[in-house]
Amino acid sequence: MTTTPPTERTRVRRLPNRASYDAATIHAILDEGLVCHLGFAHDGQAFVLPTTYARVEDALYVHGSAASRMFRGLRDGIPVCATVTLLDGLVLARSAFHHSMNYRSVVILGVAAEVTEPAERLRALEAIVEHVAPGRWAQVRPPNERELKATMVLRLPIAEASAKLRTGGPLDDAEDLGWPCWAGHVPLQLVALPPVADATQPAGAVAPNGRA
Amino acid sequence: MTTTPPTERTRVRRLPNRASYDAATIHAILDEGLVCHLGFAHDGQAFVLPTTYARVEDALYVHGSAASRMFRGLRDGIPVCATVTLLDGLVLARSAFHHSMNYRSVVILGVAAEVTEPAERLRALEAIVEHVAPGRWAQVRPPNERELKATMVLRLPIAEASAKLRTGGPLDDAEDLGWPCWAGHVPLQLVALPPVADATQPAGAVAPNGRA
Repeated sequence: MTTTPPTERTRVRRLPNRASYDAATIHAILDEGLVCHLGFAHDGQAFVLPTTYARVEDALYVHGSAASRMFRGLRDGIPVCATVTLLDGLVLARSAFHHSMNYRSVVILGVAAEVTEPAERLRALEAIVEHVAPGRWAQVRPPNERELKATMVLRLPIAEASAKLRTGGPLDDAEDLGWPCWAGHVPLQLVALPPVADATQPAGAVAPNGRA
Repeated sequence: MTTTPPTERTRVRRLPNRASYDAATIHAILDEGLVCHLGFAHDGQAFVLPTTYARVEDALYVHGSAASRMFRGLRDGIPVCATVTLLDGLVLARSAFHHSMNYRSVVILGVAAEVTEPAERLRALEAIVEHVAPGRWAQVRPPNERELKATMVLRLPIAEASAKLRTGGPLDDAEDLGWPCWAGHVPLQLVALPPVADATQPAGAVAPNGRA
């Protein structure tokens, strides 16, 4: 897959020059993000909940409690929207109107399917741990039968998806360029602070840096 | 308002010990966040889009193009869910199963109303700019009539809302405490990098730090 041609539902209408349907762009945003916001509707009311995820090829995997109402609903075919947003900066224009944010976001629409095949389930769980802390899956105690039974894994195809991006400084109107205030943008970055070790540690344990 | 008593729809069911319905907790999360994810349903399909916002007392204000389909739909009474998530850290447990994230999130359900009263509209737009860069509203060129006409401001009451929080290190099973890998958590923080000035600047302009 190199592009996800926009459908009537994913075509970006507001500021379409910021849109991308390129798979590499979409994948890069998904791979950099740590949290997706899952949206689903119940009786016309949308609910939006944050959760971790991982991308493997053309699929987004999420996992949760097998007892979760959300996961049961999604498994049963409720249409879902998964949105990942990376906040890259504050755009401070000369006019209030042109203030903005720099961001990269992806919206995926579709129907999720429960992953029941044991090898794919394990691969998905591995991907979710590795997405957050590369190399960690090989170090940790693997899931046991009880834990696997308590976990639902869902796969959402990245088939109907779009990205939207804004970069750079403010786009002020020409007549505002002389307005007497600072104008530009303030990049934002999610950074990892020093790891905080748990009270008990094996001898020689080395703290990871995490992914951020 | 000191609490937002949970309704059937906002009561946190998964890990209810992480829930809070305390207004001060909810407000602090909303005031720290920079982006909310707005969810709404159309023909049973949820859509989740990121946007800026500001809280003023017991209301969340969002703004967008008056021509936006989403904003027109919300103005016309489509139920909305506004979710704000602060990602505070990676929780690296000894077992794959107990890996988690530290976070603080707020979910608000309700129906938004268009703000048409000119003074409240201006206050909301001011709050949105000040939320991102305190002190900036007084410096920038205020909105003119054309810009105000092109902008829709919506108010969502923070009446049916809940917060969910996780802090601290991993909660491993007792039998895993001797597992030979590092365990702990990695705090994450959104930081502002040095401001990037636009090409034209007035003499003596001072770069702000932004809010992050």
